[in-house]
Amino acid sequence: MDRLLVNTSSREQLVNITTPTQGLITQRGWRDGILTLFCPHTSASVILAEGNDPAVGGDLLRNLRRLLPPDQTYLHQGNPDAHLKSILAGQTVQLIVEQGQMQLGSWQGVFFCEFDGPRPREVWAKFKA
Amino acid sequence: MDRLLVNTSSREQLVNITTPTQGLITQRGWRDGILTLFCPHTSASVILAEGNDPAVGGDLLRNLRRLLPPDQTYLHQGNPDAHLKSILAGQTVQLIVEQGQMQLGSWQGVFFCEFDGPRPREVWAKFKA
Amino acid sequence: MDRLLVNTSSREQLVNITTPTQGLITQRGWRDGILTLFCPHTSASVILAEGNDPAVGGDLLRNLRRLLPPDQTYLHQGNPDAHLKSILAGQTVQLIVEQGQMQLGSWQGVFFCEFDGPRPREVWAKFKA
Repeated sequence: MDRLLVNTSSREQLVNITTPTQGLITQRGWRDGILTLFCPHTSASVILAEGNDPAVGGDLLRNLRRLLPPDQTYLHQGNPDAHLKSILAGQTVQLIVEQGQMQLGSWQGVFFCEFDGPRPREVWAKFKA
Repeated sequence: MDRLLVNTSSREQLVNITTPTQGLITQRGWRDGILTLFCPHTSASVILAEGNDPAVGGDLLRNLRRLLPPDQTYLHQGNPDAHLKSILAGQTVQLIVEQGQMQLGSWQGVFFCEFDGPRPREVWAKFKA
Repeated sequence: MDRLLVNTSSREQLVNITTPTQGLITQRGWRDGILTLFCPHTSASVILAEGNDPAVGGDLLRNLRRLLPPDQTYLHQGNPDAHLKSILAGQTVQLIVEQGQMQLGSWQGVFFCEFDGPRPREVWAKFKA
């Protein structure tokens, strides 16, 4: 498998990884198949989301914070809200690749969601033709 | 890849696409493998859900509306609540195909979730043997 | 496909299935590819989550109960809250397998989430090299 490196710069942040993901596909010469992206972190997610207006990421983070407030009482010590946000947003995405191009809808982008940064992070990528 | 066409008729709606999905598998002669369904829209989802009682879809839409009200303040102009619902419900589903049949649990169905219709929509399908 | 059997013992419960999942990979001799785990139930989920502190599972169940209370008014009779929790937590997970080992992050585990037990349950597993 391959690793995309993502350095986040705040506690909660969306990072658009559409371009590096396509870059990896091109570099490896993957032509036709399914690319699985896997987030190996329990306080982060990989998602598909509206990719043109950064306000959508802000809306997501703000609303997840409202639904899962960091300051309510949890059993887990440390970053409990981040674990729950990671579960709800999800850690794996499957992308269709045809003719060497990742197939996305007009408005879609691939995003890494940081819920407990800043940290150096990875997204794992495995292609099956 | 193949495209399933879905025409939605209201702003929020679940459409059961179990039969057309199996129809595509049969038509293409896919026998054994994984079928990836991919929603190329940022204000819609593809999910697995209880397929026998349409009330479950109503419960889902009503509760997502309660958790992510369309009339609260968002940063994104237009359809911000729809983008967030799409992220939480998810855009990709993997289905096991054996002997030409999609393998589902007794109560499961495959659903397209419209969060910002009515619109003509697509679900992309890619099979890997 | 293969089936992992999970017997749950309360209405809501997380069961760590990391070890039996790796056991299946080893037993079958799967070396390199993608393992799809599929939950065939509409009131349960399969997820990736923090695997070292059982408190995270308690936090998840308690917060889903807060967001989707079992005693509010739903249209569906029976277990409506369980269906909605199942949709939000999700039913399919893709795991990268290399050199016969499931690839997980340091803190990750694979969990079956029961939202309407106790019941005998299954997780379906399909490997593609």
